[in-house]
Amino acid sequence: MVSPPQNPDYAKTVKQSFAAQAMMSSLGAEIVALDPGKVVIAAPIRPEFGQQQGYAHAAIAFALGDSAAGYAALSLMPPGHEVLTSEMKIHLLAPANGSRLIARGEVIKAGRRLVIVRADVHAEDGAGQRHVATLLGTMVPVPV
Amino acid sequence: MVSPPQNPDYAKTVKQSFAAQAMMSSLGAEIVALDPGKVVIAAPIRPEFGQQQGYAHAAIAFALGDSAAGYAALSLMPPGHEVLTSEMKIHLLAPANGSRLIARGEVIKAGRRLVIVRADVHAEDGAGQRHVATLLGTMVPVPV
Amino acid sequence: MVSPPQNPDYAKTVKQSFAAQAMMSSLGAEIVALDPGKVVIAAPIRPEFGQQQGYAHAAIAFALGDSAAGYAALSLMPPGHEVLTSEMKIHLLAPANGSRLIARGEVIKAGRRLVIVRADVHAEDGAGQRHVATLLGTMVPVPV
Amino acid sequence: MVSPPQNPDYAKTVKQSFAAQAMMSSLGAEIVALDPGKVVIAAPIRPEFGQQQGYAHAAIAFALGDSAAGYAALSLMPPGHEVLTSEMKIHLLAPANGSRLIARGEVIKAGRRLVIVRADVHAEDGAGQRHVATLLGTMVPVPV
Repeated sequence: MVSPPQNPDYAKTVKQSFAAQAMMSSLGAEIVALDPGKVVIAAPIRPEFGQQQGYAHAAIAFALGDSAAGYAALSLMPPGHEVLTSEMKIHLLAPANGSRLIARGEVIKAGRRLVIVRADVHAEDGAGQRHVATLLGTMVPVPV
Repeated sequence: MVSPPQNPDYAKTVKQSFAAQAMMSSLGAEIVALDPGKVVIAAPIRPEFGQQQGYAHAAIAFALGDSAAGYAALSLMPPGHEVLTSEMKIHLLAPANGSRLIARGEVIKAGRRLVIVRADVHAEDGAGQRHVATLLGTMVPVPV
Repeated sequence: MVSPPQNPDYAKTVKQSFAAQAMMSSLGAEIVALDPGKVVIAAPIRPEFGQQQGYAHAAIAFALGDSAAGYAALSLMPPGHEVLTSEMKIHLLAPANGSRLIARGEVIKAGRRLVIVRADVHAEDGAGQRHVATLLGTMVPVPV
Repeated sequence: MVSPPQNPDYAKTVKQSFAAQAMMSSLGAEIVALDPGKVVIAAPIRPEFGQQQGYAHAAIAFALGDSAAGYAALSLMPPGHEVLTSEMKIHLLAPANGSRLIARGEVIKAGRRLVIVRADVHAEDGAGQRHVATLLGTMVPVPV
């Protein structure tokens, strides 16, 4: 259902925007996969971003899931655009413990004025991956 | 509509849980008001948590709003409980620029198994406060 | 925070759109208050729209809350527009029993491209009103 | 990720609850597929439940999606339980026109106290199916 990219340089556009986000760098996040309408971002689970029980704070799963979803949207926009999150819902499904969080974002519907997106976040440890969060939200394309 | 606190030491319980969250300390956040069913948290807007345009990342508004709402819920729980976020929706209403973010959380309905909460986040600069986010979600009380 | 109406005939515009919704008439709903950015809709609780325990189905609270919020948005739009729901979240807070449901919608932020809205639904019986649902969502203005 | 049914009579339990919902019968809805953790419900698109442009009202997509998701949850509960919607978010993706709506609900995570669910709604006409809504929400199991 996802349209082909309208921006032949979509990968460069996404990477430049990602590099400009101090938040992503503060989290140690990196883009690990990037296709039109689908982006995967991973980051280590760090003690300084923990909640009261020592697991990754919900805001970290939010940051990664929201970014993966947002960049999935951006990859389908025409050149000369950014996307902003209008609203996002996150369900926390399990404690985010382990060594790394992996957020997979994808586009559900790319409209001209709104892009509906989703993301799933898994926590990885030696034993495998656990589904820790699912997100569903709305991105708004804005000319830069 | 909000019941009186069931925990006479609610303020101490909230402050201890807050102090145990490394994330809050990493953000420079502090509790600036604490009443049964209502909690206000503030934090400086720091460049290292910016998005691609230099404003505070959506995840920071999420972190503060979610925490203010969660501690509003915790203040109404019986002794010996924590609360966990089950799900949370955030609307980003305006760019979060300025010197400080202020998140006001409150309880809409405190059930035995679920607590429905809301929060509003304002960005403060020399000129005043701007409404930058509104949140609505579900907290789950769990015995510790 | 709500701008003044851009459409001097906002009340007529809202009433015409409401009258064109077969769903509202099938529910027996009526507009009971209408101001710029605030609309109240009421409808009887009818057995044919009940859920498995005989209370009003969640979809009825949704229909009324979504409509009250949508018409609150429409009241602030320029002439020649409709609004469509892009997304809406509803929390069901208590069983919707009694004689009548009353939905109060209001605008949180009226942007040019998106309007953020909320609504609260109360159930009324002989003894008073009970808060049965709260909604938070996004409306999109479209030229007609 | 979905656990096996704890209720050997899950199909009977779901069908009895569905039959007790006057709302489903008023919509002309029927269960067209029923497996543990997955339920499909369909209903005709009827003019009396239209919005101002004559398409099915958002509340109809909500009613069917919420019910498909809720019965997906119920199919995994122990005997002697009902489920209630605690909160539900719906995105409206396209106008719901055609002859029939088909809602497919499934369980994302079946916890002891909360069940996280999703649903997708398609509108069917002579030419095929169109994705008109996606839902994500929380069901609460309650003993009956």
